[in-house]
Amino acid sequence: MRGNIEGMTTALPLASPTCCTPARAAVDTEEAQRVARVFKALGDPTRVLLLSTVTAAAEGEACVCDLTEPVGLSQPTVSHHLKILVDAGLLSRTQRGRWSYYAPVPGALDRLADTLRELA
Amino acid sequence: MRGNIEGMTTALPLASPTCCTPARAAVDTEEAQRVARVFKALGDPTRVLLLSTVTAAAEGEACVCDLTEPVGLSQPTVSHHLKILVDAGLLSRTQRGRWSYYAPVPGALDRLADTLRELA
Repeated sequence: MRGNIEGMTTALPLASPTCCTPARAAVDTEEAQRVARVFKALGDPTRVLLLSTVTAAAEGEACVCDLTEPVGLSQPTVSHHLKILVDAGLLSRTQRGRWSYYAPVPGALDRLADTLRELA
Repeated sequence: MRGNIEGMTTALPLASPTCCTPARAAVDTEEAQRVARVFKALGDPTRVLLLSTVTAAAEGEACVCDLTEPVGLSQPTVSHHLKILVDAGLLSRTQRGRWSYYAPVPGALDRLADTLRELA
């Protein structure tokens, strides 16, 4: 218990009367902003499914035309979600002819997993 | 290139004329919803800082009264963010007297890191 002991507050005028020890984060604000942006990109079930589908693609990349059926959404909506994953640094995008192809950014998910373990 | 070869489309009437092999995700919809919920909780820099501060606390837990100063926000706002981390299964909350104390849920971040490596 961190109680206020009668008479102690006057002896310790600089301390808060009831608490405590201000805690310190293991990450700084800039790092928190960086990782939160990536987590936010993954904070949507459709994007998790799309990322999983692209990383599981046997060819090492997936055509946007193959990604609409697994998530049951229109191509513009799927392209919107894929752009968020590209902007977060999780996927790369290559245009070939009329189609866009998406591939995992090597090491991106492993680096994010490392960050989670550092937070733990 | 996945081009349309003249004359092939009539020979393969069931195939799309330009593409492709519908891809399959490594996770199912239910799993995607579960992990997206946790990622969404982490998709905010204040919550990343709070989680990092709680996990770094020398006592193994942190009083909400110690968590306002590191993020420079009011206690109600900090409590709101902490509730989202509790609801996502990343922190636990214990009430003692007038203060709430927050502790990391053991293994939660490691399990999330494992999920990221499975997605990769």
